[in-house]
Amino acid sequence: MTPEEFRTNGYAMIDWITNYIEGIERYPVSDPSLQPGEIRAALPAHPPTHTEPFSAVLHDLDTAIVPGLTHWQHPAFFAYFPSNSSYSSILAELATAGLGVQGMSWVTSPACTEVETLMLDWMQELLGLPERFRSDSTTGGGVIHGSASEATLAAILAARWRATGGEVNITGDTSKLVAYTTTQAHSSIEKGLRIAGVGVDRMRMVPIGDTFAMLPDELARLVAEDRAGGLTPFFVCSSHGTTSSMAFDPTPDIATVCAREGMWLHVDAAMSGIAALAPEYRWVNEGLEFADSYCTNPHKWMGINFDCDLFWTADRAALLGALSILPEYLRSKAAQTGAAIDYRDWQIPLGRRFRSLKLWFSIRCDGVTPVQEMIREHVRLTQLLAGWVLTDDRFEIMTPYPLNLLCLRLRAGDAATDNLIEQANATGQALFTRTVLGGQTCLRFSIGARLTTERHVAAGWNLLQSLA
Amino acid sequence: MTPEEFRTNGYAMIDWITNYIEGIERYPVSDPSLQPGEIRAALPAHPPTHTEPFSAVLHDLDTAIVPGLTHWQHPAFFAYFPSNSSYSSILAELATAGLGVQGMSWVTSPACTEVETLMLDWMQELLGLPERFRSDSTTGGGVIHGSASEATLAAILAARWRATGGEVNITGDTSKLVAYTTTQAHSSIEKGLRIAGVGVDRMRMVPIGDTFAMLPDELARLVAEDRAGGLTPFFVCSSHGTTSSMAFDPTPDIATVCAREGMWLHVDAAMSGIAALAPEYRWVNEGLEFADSYCTNPHKWMGINFDCDLFWTADRAALLGALSILPEYLRSKAAQTGAAIDYRDWQIPLGRRFRSLKLWFSIRCDGVTPVQEMIREHVRLTQLLAGWVLTDDRFEIMTPYPLNLLCLRLRAGDAATDNLIEQANATGQALFTRTVLGGQTCLRFSIGARLTTERHVAAGWNLLQSLA
Repeated sequence: MTPEEFRTNGYAMIDWITNYIEGIERYPVSDPSLQPGEIRAALPAHPPTHTEPFSAVLHDLDTAIVPGLTHWQHPAFFAYFPSNSSYSSILAELATAGLGVQGMSWVTSPACTEVETLMLDWMQELLGLPERFRSDSTTGGGVIHGSASEATLAAILAARWRATGGEVNITGDTSKLVAYTTTQAHSSIEKGLRIAGVGVDRMRMVPIGDTFAMLPDELARLVAEDRAGGLTPFFVCSSHGTTSSMAFDPTPDIATVCAREGMWLHVDAAMSGIAALAPEYRWVNEGLEFADSYCTNPHKWMGINFDCDLFWTADRAALLGALSILPEYLRSKAAQTGAAIDYRDWQIPLGRRFRSLKLWFSIRCDGVTPVQEMIREHVRLTQLLAGWVLTDDRFEIMTPYPLNLLCLRLRAGDAATDNLIEQANATGQALFTRTVLGGQTCLRFSIGARLTTERHVAAGWNLLQSLA
Repeated sequence: MTPEEFRTNGYAMIDWITNYIEGIERYPVSDPSLQPGEIRAALPAHPPTHTEPFSAVLHDLDTAIVPGLTHWQHPAFFAYFPSNSSYSSILAELATAGLGVQGMSWVTSPACTEVETLMLDWMQELLGLPERFRSDSTTGGGVIHGSASEATLAAILAARWRATGGEVNITGDTSKLVAYTTTQAHSSIEKGLRIAGVGVDRMRMVPIGDTFAMLPDELARLVAEDRAGGLTPFFVCSSHGTTSSMAFDPTPDIATVCAREGMWLHVDAAMSGIAALAPEYRWVNEGLEFADSYCTNPHKWMGINFDCDLFWTADRAALLGALSILPEYLRSKAAQTGAAIDYRDWQIPLGRRFRSLKLWFSIRCDGVTPVQEMIREHVRLTQLLAGWVLTDDRFEIMTPYPLNLLCLRLRAGDAATDNLIEQANATGQALFTRTVLGGQTCLRFSIGARLTTERHVAAGWNLLQSLA
């Protein structure tokens, strides 16, 4: 593709995206009739031997790809979690691809590192997070990870390093380490622990209360048992907004146990933490002043296109201890004097894109006011929906709904609820996902797409009522 | 940003990128006078309270960001490794951001999974890789990772799972496992092993020969010692093109030891594997028919913008055993029947972008001919350069140079060579990185940018000669 072709095709791609997003309601949220293998079978089995014009690719996007997508930006997408792509963040991703620089070390592209550090500090201010997470604090700092899964793994590795005084890098010995979370925590906690050599034998699922939140007294009891058994409690993950039901673990009380026992406290607020952009929801930050690490995802509720997870720690030395490696081909003066941040030592991979441009573009061009307004509207719609559900006694609401997720079920039981989800999704008019809470199947009604309005929520609810 | 503003700003961003890439020679490769903190200090310390027009962001890209970049696409960029962004792959990244879909499971966006599977099969054909890596083979398959670091970690985890019969997921016990590679392997091998609970105490650096390649007899000797010591040799990483000097470990002989001892054989060809797009360089694939896993990076020499690492395994069951977790909120019929691939179980994170579009756009619009021609030209330039170096007896060449990397040094010694690198980089006219081979400082002259021509290589060499 020549530069002139790139200009022409680039304009066409920009137009295509505008038409896709603005016309997204013309598509079903997803096509429930799709069978595994169907999309692939419609594409050439072997690579082409001749080049094709870009218009052919755009045509196939329309005919072969888009019909095979689940449209996460669709206003009737009530499944999983929000995943919007703001126009400004799309342009930043385009800039990132065009620049094509590597930010693994400061010296490999200084601006890539310094803008990222600044954006983490801007976000600390905008979210009202503890000062000790700032990069200009004594021991803290922040970094962009691809996902909360990677942030969690980094937190576990830092905790593992600190709990063993760094010995784990030498011996790999994790045999005494025990971690604590709940059955409601995200699957990435178990995955991260498993990767780090902490098997399920040494993962404790702390009992939960009526609201599916961790019981701190039970945490203290389990820790005491493990201590008595000669084990080393080292890591607790407290969730601020669980995936299943948006439960909030009581971090201040959990922190008391962690401080007493010298355990690393990680708070996972991947979905809900962004609510703190609106000051009235700053309660989602409760207890963060005691956390060793924290993550939340602008690529969920802030409209920054995936991937953009923000990870802060109050103990960067432990993170660096766990992840630093300095081969000869990466040495530089800046790295050796410690004057510069080398983000490769803050993450699992070596290479890294210039992802902070997404925040820089978005905060400058759009500001946070539209995000605050969107969050408030999604919360309002969730409360409105709850009011409707409460008037239909075939349904029951299973959990508190302080923000934008409502978990409901049919009183008729699990099979009826599963059936309802399947039938609703089969219409293509809306998309819901299920979960299990207290052994009972629930429908998650997650309201988080930028384009979702009251009309869409009402239509989603009417659909459920008509199928119930 | 409104849809209409997005169109206007999007065109401007496309133009900006075209001008950036086509005018890249107007910049120094990097600015050696930059001090840590300088870029950040020139930007607002706090987030803005009012929104700004997109033109202000573009202006600041020019004035505040670009001067702080190391330009990886610059034709005089001879540092690290190639990292080009082809125009077609930039447009694909734009499409990915615009679509904003999640490919963690088949059901979360079927096309995202199926196009990826197809692209891995296309690339198997284009690179001439073993059939057993294909997704339609009995036990194999491929996936896109963000980086070779993540691919390596995935390979280690699969190996760990297989060597313990899956027990590691339960017990976390890695205490008997021993891994083998060389001092020349990429730092991500050590990092991955450390993350997986294999400390440096159980990492063996197998002795290397004159060409910095692993000595298989030494591998066999170390494995026997470890067996005698009651340990379990489980993982070998063979490098096809090391980072320091592009050394090729002798995989067929290494494979013999691996097969006898039941060890997982991972081949890391992150940089050099893409050479196999040109049939005459298919020797880079030697021994892959014996490998349990393999990775190479289109985001290096193929011109696909970062991130795009291709990872294949001949034992997908081990990979899935290591990384599968199925919480209630991710269950689906497609996943439970096994009819569909859920790529979240092939990687470290849960979330994933629609990265395969980068390959799909590029292979269709550009084909592989331009990449083959570029690779051939880079190899020709490297041989030409070597010829020039051989005529100047102040310099010596330290390693074989079968592809596009020349490692050279001043006979005057380490200090002189270090000084030469520093002085050359201080001009901003070219950028080199250093390494240490056999205890001696070397200058790496890596020829891999799409825009690099004979003129640039000659200028780089003349610069070195004039400073020597």
